[in-house]
Amino acid sequence: MIPFFTINQSDKNTSSRAGILHTDHGNISTPCFMPVGTYGAVKTQSSEEIVDLPSPVLLCNTYHLYLRPGIEILQKVGGLHSFMNWKGAILTDSGGFQIFSLEEFRKVTDDGVTFRSHLDGSEHHLTPEKIVDIQRIIGSDFMMMLDVCPSGDADYKTWVDALNTTTNWAKRSMKHYRETESIYGYKQVLISIVQGGTDKKLRRQSTSELCELDADAYAIGGLAVGEPKSEMLETVEWMDEFLPKNKPRYLMGVGTPADLVRNVARGVDMFDCVIPTRNARNGQLFTYDGKMNIRNAKHKSDFSPIDVNGISPMSETYTRAYLHHLFKTEEILGYRIATQHNLRFYIHLMKTIQDEIITGNFENWASSFLNRYDDEN
Amino acid sequence: MIPFFTINQSDKNTSSRAGILHTDHGNISTPCFMPVGTYGAVKTQSSEEIVDLPSPVLLCNTYHLYLRPGIEILQKVGGLHSFMNWKGAILTDSGGFQIFSLEEFRKVTDDGVTFRSHLDGSEHHLTPEKIVDIQRIIGSDFMMMLDVCPSGDADYKTWVDALNTTTNWAKRSMKHYRETESIYGYKQVLISIVQGGTDKKLRRQSTSELCELDADAYAIGGLAVGEPKSEMLETVEWMDEFLPKNKPRYLMGVGTPADLVRNVARGVDMFDCVIPTRNARNGQLFTYDGKMNIRNAKHKSDFSPIDVNGISPMSETYTRAYLHHLFKTEEILGYRIATQHNLRFYIHLMKTIQDEIITGNFENWASSFLNRYDDEN
Repeated sequence: MIPFFTINQSDKNTSSRAGILHTDHGNISTPCFMPVGTYGAVKTQSSEEIVDLPSPVLLCNTYHLYLRPGIEILQKVGGLHSFMNWKGAILTDSGGFQIFSLEEFRKVTDDGVTFRSHLDGSEHHLTPEKIVDIQRIIGSDFMMMLDVCPSGDADYKTWVDALNTTTNWAKRSMKHYRETESIYGYKQVLISIVQGGTDKKLRRQSTSELCELDADAYAIGGLAVGEPKSEMLETVEWMDEFLPKNKPRYLMGVGTPADLVRNVARGVDMFDCVIPTRNARNGQLFTYDGKMNIRNAKHKSDFSPIDVNGISPMSETYTRAYLHHLFKTEEILGYRIATQHNLRFYIHLMKTIQDEIITGNFENWASSFLNRYDDEN
Repeated sequence: MIPFFTINQSDKNTSSRAGILHTDHGNISTPCFMPVGTYGAVKTQSSEEIVDLPSPVLLCNTYHLYLRPGIEILQKVGGLHSFMNWKGAILTDSGGFQIFSLEEFRKVTDDGVTFRSHLDGSEHHLTPEKIVDIQRIIGSDFMMMLDVCPSGDADYKTWVDALNTTTNWAKRSMKHYRETESIYGYKQVLISIVQGGTDKKLRRQSTSELCELDADAYAIGGLAVGEPKSEMLETVEWMDEFLPKNKPRYLMGVGTPADLVRNVARGVDMFDCVIPTRNARNGQLFTYDGKMNIRNAKHKSDFSPIDVNGISPMSETYTRAYLHHLFKTEEILGYRIATQHNLRFYIHLMKTIQDEIITGNFENWASSFLNRYDDEN
């Protein structure tokens, strides 16, 4: 039997490692970045364009898909892969983060969470078991457990409560996962989510409790939710100590290109973030030199290509002046070009990172990348 | 020297004809439909996707391009083809229709038209000569003269005034066109625009006055501006009598698939319209059976392809249920799929029309098309 995760190269100078996630929808080289397709579509892009990035995996959202199109539709069509015509792998976030963002409309009990839909106000009750069931119907290759994700400015007591509930729910999730089967015949793994805010003791406790469940992969939740960046990096460093080396680590909701490089050095294997797609729609493009905003007047008559680094065919075909014009006239083509550029840049960056780890040059490369990359964040 | 327009086949039973427009940016088989890319981009589509429709030509708007990006940018980059990376032909509407839509903000004198920009309120004065100059800078293969386009509910006196000013401006346009040259070295033709509302005498007068100028092509303006459809068809029938047979006729701003078929039968060679693109973004799809609105609840769990007629790869790849979902969640991909489908349908329809004219079967085919096609309009 092929193992779920193999590490091909562990870096000598940093905690970075290059590996492969084996799924029934193809292999995924790590460290990897997963484009976000919340509702079963990466904003502005077609499934074919995600294949061509190339990305072997994308992330969708259980909470959003549960509300629209709803699990009845997804069950009828035989899962999300079929619904969106996507042959690669899918990771579905549990929706915990989204539900806990509905501050005024949700209530957490030991049993689960009750909330009102942000769409029509209808009331819903979701339990850890039901979140597994929904993802069985979605048919995601990587399922996530329901967790409690406090906001970045939460206090210690909130962190402790979130941790305890998350552990309790993780046990129920894993039990239910082991008692149920994939509906469509392919393997689905279940990822547990470590909480504990930015407190070392709590993070150690959460990791220790979750490791007893022996999940296939570990997500680091509760970061990139408003805490200072230095605290995020320090917390990931602790997690590198606590987490088992032989399992993939997924840092949820991170981040900028510089964040990716810094967290790969701290042992993270998987990332997802809306930054490349959302910022693209605001005109922000990423390059190896840093960010540029194409709406800036200096691009108005700049007839050089968007990017000359071979990142994206569209970036070489169209000029900065044309893209500037498309943004000024609010043409959807502008959002498409910028989104494709940013996603291709992220994927190119991850491929470079993988190569540099494999050749043993990651530390030098990362230092030179971070020197060159102008990260105003 | 290759003539600008050759007719390969004139139908025996109707006024339809199949021909070729020869431009320095390729040949265009007629009857043709030109996708609308107002600002130098067909909404939601890339230039490559327009090539792949396949469309050898697109329509852009002089008024809009004059305001954004402005002629300074277009002159610097060497014209619109280069700016938008489009190697096919371009027709630019003169902008008369758009300017005359700014009812409260424009003033017509014998010299030209003064108006305030719909964007920033800035005042502009455009003359027939300047409209030619702008299109020289844009570098469109087909330039249009500045005309006066009254609204559909205008009275007879308004039609007469519009006709007289249009003839006067046409003379000045043609004189200026003959005194100036293409900036980028390729041929640009100038199309005159017949006015006269839905009055037969006025249409005859306008045609007669314009024919003295011996333009390369004739546009039928002042229709599809709110008049009853029967009056539009009757007016086009008159125009078929008045216009020279050996020059292409362009019916501006028309129309639905059934409109195209009916007006081809009345001798029209060229069309443009925002219907396939604008309606696509509202969820309306065209098929050989008529219109369907993908937002309709009946498509929610319809897992059949969008269209099985080989119209568009996306229409065969994605299901109606998925497209319904994309519209419900306002995903840009939905607008892209629907737009591509509609444009491909229009192009497929025009190719079918060309083939049926050439084989002498157009009248039968048109009758069977109109029987099958459910045109609620």
